[in-house]
Amino acid sequence: MLASALRDGTAERRCVFEVFARHLPDGRRYGVVAGTERLIRALENFRFTEAELDRLGKSGVVDDNTLRWLADYRFRGDVDGYPEGELYFPGSPILAVEGTFAEAVVLETITLSILNHDSAIASAAARMVSAANGRRMIEMGSRRAHEEAGVASARAAYLAGFTATSNLEAGRRYGIPTAGTSAHAFVLLHDDEEAAFRSQVTTLGRQTTLLVDTYDITAGIERAVRVAGPELGAVRIDSGDLGVLARQAREQLDTLGARNTKIVVSGDLDEFAIAALRAEPVDAYGVGTAVVTGSGAPTAGMVYKLVEVDERPVAKRSSHKESKGGRKAALRRHKPTGTAIEEVVYRAAGPRPERGEHDRDLQIPLIRGGQRVSGLPTLEESRERLRRGLVSVPWEGLKLSHGEPVIPTVFIT
Amino acid sequence: MLASALRDGTAERRCVFEVFARHLPDGRRYGVVAGTERLIRALENFRFTEAELDRLGKSGVVDDNTLRWLADYRFRGDVDGYPEGELYFPGSPILAVEGTFAEAVVLETITLSILNHDSAIASAAARMVSAANGRRMIEMGSRRAHEEAGVASARAAYLAGFTATSNLEAGRRYGIPTAGTSAHAFVLLHDDEEAAFRSQVTTLGRQTTLLVDTYDITAGIERAVRVAGPELGAVRIDSGDLGVLARQAREQLDTLGARNTKIVVSGDLDEFAIAALRAEPVDAYGVGTAVVTGSGAPTAGMVYKLVEVDERPVAKRSSHKESKGGRKAALRRHKPTGTAIEEVVYRAAGPRPERGEHDRDLQIPLIRGGQRVSGLPTLEESRERLRRGLVSVPWEGLKLSHGEPVIPTVFIT
Repeated sequence: MLASALRDGTAERRCVFEVFARHLPDGRRYGVVAGTERLIRALENFRFTEAELDRLGKSGVVDDNTLRWLADYRFRGDVDGYPEGELYFPGSPILAVEGTFAEAVVLETITLSILNHDSAIASAAARMVSAANGRRMIEMGSRRAHEEAGVASARAAYLAGFTATSNLEAGRRYGIPTAGTSAHAFVLLHDDEEAAFRSQVTTLGRQTTLLVDTYDITAGIERAVRVAGPELGAVRIDSGDLGVLARQAREQLDTLGARNTKIVVSGDLDEFAIAALRAEPVDAYGVGTAVVTGSGAPTAGMVYKLVEVDERPVAKRSSHKESKGGRKAALRRHKPTGTAIEEVVYRAAGPRPERGEHDRDLQIPLIRGGQRVSGLPTLEESRERLRRGLVSVPWEGLKLSHGEPVIPTVFIT
Repeated sequence: MLASALRDGTAERRCVFEVFARHLPDGRRYGVVAGTERLIRALENFRFTEAELDRLGKSGVVDDNTLRWLADYRFRGDVDGYPEGELYFPGSPILAVEGTFAEAVVLETITLSILNHDSAIASAAARMVSAANGRRMIEMGSRRAHEEAGVASARAAYLAGFTATSNLEAGRRYGIPTAGTSAHAFVLLHDDEEAAFRSQVTTLGRQTTLLVDTYDITAGIERAVRVAGPELGAVRIDSGDLGVLARQAREQLDTLGARNTKIVVSGDLDEFAIAALRAEPVDAYGVGTAVVTGSGAPTAGMVYKLVEVDERPVAKRSSHKESKGGRKAALRRHKPTGTAIEEVVYRAAGPRPERGEHDRDLQIPLIRGGQRVSGLPTLEESRERLRRGLVSVPWEGLKLSHGEPVIPTVFIT
């Protein structure tokens, strides 16, 4: 595409590509935009290295003219989009990339990879956070995801309201709180459970979390409190019927005087299992596989479509997967109470729809002339944006069952 | 765990950690081991950088003694495992990591991340390759996966028998054949479809693949052949009822004299859709989302468990998620015809089970003293190993429907 466009002169045409999702995954009621900050960094630094150019040349993928163009590549265009932590719905114009065809077309894969992955994780994680109803959530799924995807997942889960991650690299890279407990291997390494507990408490203090289900849970809890005293920070249970075990553990801990010792549960938890434990005396959830794999929806299904060429709207017109041509903007209408009513998507070049005092424009400038706009939201601010966004959706939006998008998308074209 | 073990002296105990899957994902009949080569490279190069150590120290995650230990870290132990492209079943001892507790425990996340991701992709991809029954398969899912996971997915899909990938970085990094076609954006960029086709054929020659479904497919095919002549390499159809459209396209191409022009289809294909197109005149499949997300099983669910400490078998013993202690070895029994019968998993320290002339040991040495063993299988050899492995499974193993593992795992402990 690039080689042909450079040769025939269309490469310099001014284009707008838009990112949107045709539908939400799998009966979900809302999606959460995530990855924008990672994307901005990736676009600012998007270059072709010597080694890459060498391979492209030798393998004959592109001609010499294209190779020279790629060697000088940097993105000099503009990007607008939904900020991280914003909710999205089918057709929401989540991102608009404006530049020459050539400079924008090569960004499709990196743009979609980041937004599709991070948004899928954040969208699943947000449902888990709702289900946990204020209890602590620790993301511990790195081992079930690609080694770099795990780091990005930790970030997306934190954005969605998780309390901490066990991924230390995510802590380092993004400043996210980290937390973890010991594994069964640590208990098995020692001559007996008591030796393992004693060692851990000596190193980490009484406030540590002891894993009590390696042998017998009741004996494990008794031993844990004997070793650490009633000031023991927490016990973790990683297997079995977690609801029953949490209740038994709470009673036992209280009987032993360890009334402030917390109970952490883990083991194949997803949003439904978390919700099912709502009535049980659980203080924190450790969530792994389900969050890093998007709980059944591992990709957000967003697409990157050319919608404008030299200010002329363009769109695929065959019978399936139709797109709407022309650059779009969006606003979300709200009742005076703050409850969201609808997502209004309109042609940016057309008349601006009437805007009530409770309505809100959704896109913000992200990149201008290839440079990040200053003052973009921090990760903490994006977290808060999502928290507020979830307060604003109609109550049925927080139901975990399959359903329709909680507000309709209205297209004005 | 590490800090405590270094302090209490157990860190130096000789340990064996094993990687296995308790079950196959989601009704699958076999799993495919993938990622071993990536893992070996990761373990050889596993170090803690200054920046990482600095963060670990400042954040108080580990004490100074542990920090010093990490600064000198390199893995000096041994690793055995199933070679890439080998089939696996529930309980197969896919990998054994032997070393001190300290040096082996820190490898859990990187080991599982790589094996869980790559094996999930290869396991899904192998089913698609079977369904395609010899037709060309192009992996084009990068945009639906994390940006680095996409590169690893391309490799895993190729290992499983895909013909090529659209991920150029995977081509560069792993020497995998690359292929691609143009997108709708390229057609939309031009003043009309004919101009786009003409430009592409000028740049890439008549053997190129033209995307014909931007406007009207019948008109698109007519135009494609008019521009490129009957020597046109291929047309791609990316939307609609692909079976019907492929038949119509074949008839039309034949009528136009383009009897050798191939038909490439793409658009939300998974193993079931591929199988459903078996009777249609399709020459190649472009597969995206389904392959890079493991077609419903985005992680292989493998675990990393401590099974031996100073030659003493150890295992979790509470009522759930039990493990079998002691280092294991495995052989696969076959009929004289070559058909696999069962996976025999036995204690490496115990008596060796009787071994028929058609039986095969499954683990090979991968790392000795921290160094890669020489002469490990190449990617092409692993591809061939899987091809032969799939020929050896009982015929029902290649069915796409949900079922049990196609051969049983027999534990001799």
